Amino acid sequence: MSLLDYFRQSKPEATAKQAKERLQIIVAHERNQRNGPDYLPDLQRDILEVIKKYVAVEQDDVKVSLDNRSEELSVLELNITLPDNR
Amino acid sequence: MSLLDYFRQSKPEATAKQAKERLQIIVAHERNQRNGPDYLPDLQRDILEVIKKYVAVEQDDVKVSLDNRSEELSVLELNITLPDNR
Repeated sequence: MSLLDYFRQSKPEATAKQAKERLQIIVAHERNQRNGPDYLPDLQRDILEVIKKYVAVEQDDVKVSLDNRSEELSVLELNITLPDNR
Repeated sequence: MSLLDYFRQSKPEATAKQAKERLQIIVAHERNQRNGPDYLPDLQRDILEVIKKYVAVEQDDVKVSLDNRSEELSVLELNITLPDNR
Protein backbone atom coordinates (compact mmCIF):
# COMPACT_ATOMS: atom_id res chain seq x y z
CA MET A 1 0.00 0.00 0.00
CA SER A 2 1.38 3.36 -0.92
CA LEU A 3 1.64 6.26 1.48
CA LEU A 4 -0.93 8.06 -0.62
CA ASP A 5 -3.46 5.33 0.07
CA TYR A 6 -2.83 5.72 3.73
CA PHE A 7 -3.50 9.44 3.62
CA ARG A 8 -6.67 8.84 1.66
CA GLN A 9 -7.92 6.68 4.47
CA SER A 10 -7.42 9.42 7.03
CA LYS A 11 -10.65 10.75 8.33
CA PRO A 12 -11.28 14.44 7.75
CA GLU A 13 -12.06 16.32 10.91
CA ALA A 14 -14.43 19.22 11.16
CA THR A 15 -11.84 21.65 12.34
CA ALA A 16 -12.16 24.12 9.50
CA LYS A 17 -15.23 25.59 11.09
CA GLN A 18 -13.57 25.95 14.45
CA ALA A 19 -11.28 28.88 15.07
CA LYS A 20 -8.46 26.88 16.53
CA GLU A 21 -4.83 26.53 15.77
CA ARG A 22 -3.98 23.03 14.76
CA LEU A 23 -0.84 21.11 13.93
CA GLN A 24 -0.99 17.75 12.26
CA ILE A 25 2.19 15.77 11.88
CA ILE A 26 2.41 12.53 9.98
CA VAL A 27 5.57 10.48 9.88
CA ALA A 28 5.58 7.49 7.58
CA HIS A 29 8.49 5.10 7.80
CA GLU A 30 9.05 2.57 5.05
CA ARG A 31 11.66 -0.02 5.85
CA ASN A 32 13.20 -2.32 3.33
CA GLN A 33 14.30 -4.78 5.98
CA ARG A 34 11.58 -6.42 8.00
CA ASN A 35 13.75 -6.41 11.05
CA GLY A 36 15.08 -2.92 10.58
CA PRO A 37 15.05 -0.68 13.63
CA ASP A 38 11.78 1.01 14.51
CA TYR A 39 12.62 4.37 16.03
CA LEU A 40 9.21 5.99 15.58
CA PRO A 41 8.24 5.86 19.28
CA ASP A 42 11.44 7.72 20.19
CA LEU A 43 11.07 10.07 17.24
CA GLN A 44 7.53 10.87 18.34
CA ARG A 45 8.76 11.97 21.77
CA ASP A 46 11.53 14.08 20.26
CA ILE A 47 9.29 15.78 17.71
CA LEU A 48 6.85 16.69 20.45
CA GLU A 49 9.68 18.22 22.46
CA VAL A 50 10.71 20.29 19.43
CA ILE A 51 7.15 21.53 18.88
CA LYS A 52 6.97 22.68 22.48
CA LYS A 53 9.70 25.19 21.63
CA TYR A 54 7.21 27.00 19.41
CA VAL A 55 3.78 26.47 20.92
CA ALA A 56 2.50 25.89 24.43
CA VAL A 57 1.40 22.28 24.09
CA GLU A 58 -0.16 20.46 26.99
CA GLN A 59 -0.70 16.75 27.20
CA ASP A 60 -4.45 17.05 26.64
CA ASP A 61 -3.88 18.89 23.36
CA VAL A 62 -2.08 15.98 21.76
CA LYS A 63 -3.53 12.88 20.17
CA VAL A 64 -1.03 10.31 19.06
CA SER A 65 -1.53 7.25 16.95
CA LEU A 66 1.19 4.85 15.92
CA ASP A 67 0.07 2.41 13.29
CA ASN A 68 2.30 -0.47 12.29
CA ARG A 69 0.44 -1.15 9.10
CA SER A 70 2.82 -3.84 7.94
CA GLU A 71 6.27 -5.10 8.69
CA GLU A 72 7.61 -2.56 6.23
CA LEU A 73 5.39 0.47 6.89
CA SER A 74 4.77 2.30 10.16
CA VAL A 75 2.82 5.51 10.35
CA LEU A 76 2.94 7.90 13.26
CA GLU A 77 0.32 10.61 13.52
CA LEU A 78 0.34 13.52 15.95
CA ASN A 79 -2.68 15.78 16.14
CA ILE A 80 -2.27 18.88 18.22
CA THR A 81 -5.13 21.30 18.76
CA LEU A 82 -4.42 24.51 20.59
CA PRO A 83 -7.03 26.62 22.32
CA ASP A 84 -7.60 30.06 20.84
CA ASN A 85 -5.92 32.13 23.43
CA ARG A 86 -2.57 30.52 23.76
CA MET B 1 -9.56 23.05 1.90
CA SER B 2 -9.20 20.25 4.38
CA LEU B 3 -5.95 18.56 5.19
CA LEU B 4 -7.33 15.42 3.65
CA ASP B 5 -7.70 17.17 0.33
CA TYR B 6 -4.09 18.21 0.52
CA PHE B 7 -2.93 14.66 1.10
CA ARG B 8 -5.06 13.46 -1.78
CA GLN B 9 -3.18 15.81 -4.03
CA SER B 10 0.18 14.39 -3.03
CA LYS B 11 1.81 12.50 -5.83
CA PRO B 12 2.58 8.86 -5.15
CA GLU B 13 6.18 7.99 -5.78
CA ALA B 14 7.37 4.73 -7.20
CA THR B 15 9.45 3.85 -4.20
CA ALA B 16 7.57 0.72 -3.25
CA LYS B 17 9.47 -1.20 -5.89
CA GLN B 18 12.80 0.05 -4.67
CA ALA B 19 14.39 -1.57 -1.67
CA LYS B 20 15.12 1.67 0.14
CA GLU B 21 14.35 2.99 3.53
CA ARG B 22 12.18 6.05 3.39
CA LEU B 23 10.83 8.58 5.83
CA GLN B 24 8.07 10.95 4.86
CA ILE B 25 7.11 13.69 7.25
CA ILE B 26 4.19 16.01 6.71
CA VAL B 27 3.47 18.91 9.01
CA ALA B 28 0.25 20.79 8.41
CA HIS B 29 -0.28 23.99 10.33
CA GLU B 30 -3.73 25.52 10.46
CA ARG B 31 -3.82 28.99 11.94
CA ASN B 32 -6.93 30.75 13.00
CA GLN B 33 -5.29 34.13 12.83
CA ARG B 34 -4.07 35.27 9.46
CA ASN B 35 -1.13 36.99 11.00
CA GLY B 36 -0.29 34.26 13.44
CA PRO B 37 3.34 33.26 13.69
CA ASP B 38 4.67 30.88 11.06
CA TYR B 39 7.29 28.72 12.70
CA LEU B 40 7.34 25.95 10.13
CA PRO B 41 10.73 26.89 8.62
CA ASP B 42 12.33 26.68 12.05
CA LEU B 43 10.38 23.55 12.92
CA GLN B 44 11.60 21.95 9.70
CA ARG B 45 15.21 22.50 10.68
CA ASP B 46 14.63 21.16 14.18
CA ILE B 47 12.79 18.04 13.03
CA LEU B 48 15.61 17.27 10.62
CA GLU B 49 18.11 17.56 13.45
CA VAL B 50 16.04 15.14 15.53
CA ILE B 51 15.85 12.62 12.69
CA LYS B 52 19.63 12.69 12.34
CA LYS B 53 19.80 11.19 15.81
CA TYR B 54 18.28 8.00 14.41
CA VAL B 55 19.40 7.75 10.80
CA ALA B 56 22.44 8.96 8.89
CA VAL B 57 20.82 11.62 6.75
CA GLU B 58 22.87 13.59 4.26
CA GLN B 59 21.74 16.72 2.52
CA ASP B 60 21.19 14.95 -0.79
CA ASP B 61 18.79 12.48 0.83
CA VAL B 62 16.31 15.17 1.83
CA LYS B 63 13.68 16.85 -0.29
CA VAL B 64 11.81 19.64 1.41
CA SER B 65 8.74 21.49 0.27
CA LEU B 66 7.01 24.23 2.19
CA ASP B 67 3.67 25.13 0.76
CA ASN B 68 1.78 28.12 2.08
CA ARG B 69 -1.50 27.05 0.60
CA SER B 70 -3.46 29.86 2.14
CA GLU B 71 -3.10 32.44 4.86
CA GLU B 72 -4.47 29.89 7.30
CA LEU B 73 -2.85 26.67 6.10
CA SER B 74 0.83 25.90 5.62
CA VAL B 75 2.09 22.44 4.79
CA LEU B 76 5.65 21.32 5.22
CA GLU B 77 6.76 18.10 3.60
CA LEU B 78 10.06 16.33 4.19
CA ASN B 79 10.95 13.33 2.06
CA ILE B 80 14.02 11.42 3.13
CA THR B 81 15.29 8.47 1.15
CA LEU B 82 18.15 6.48 2.57
CA PRO B 83 20.43 4.25 0.53
CA ASP B 84 20.27 0.54 1.32
CA ASN B 85 23.45 0.17 3.23
CA ARG B 86 23.28 2.91 5.76
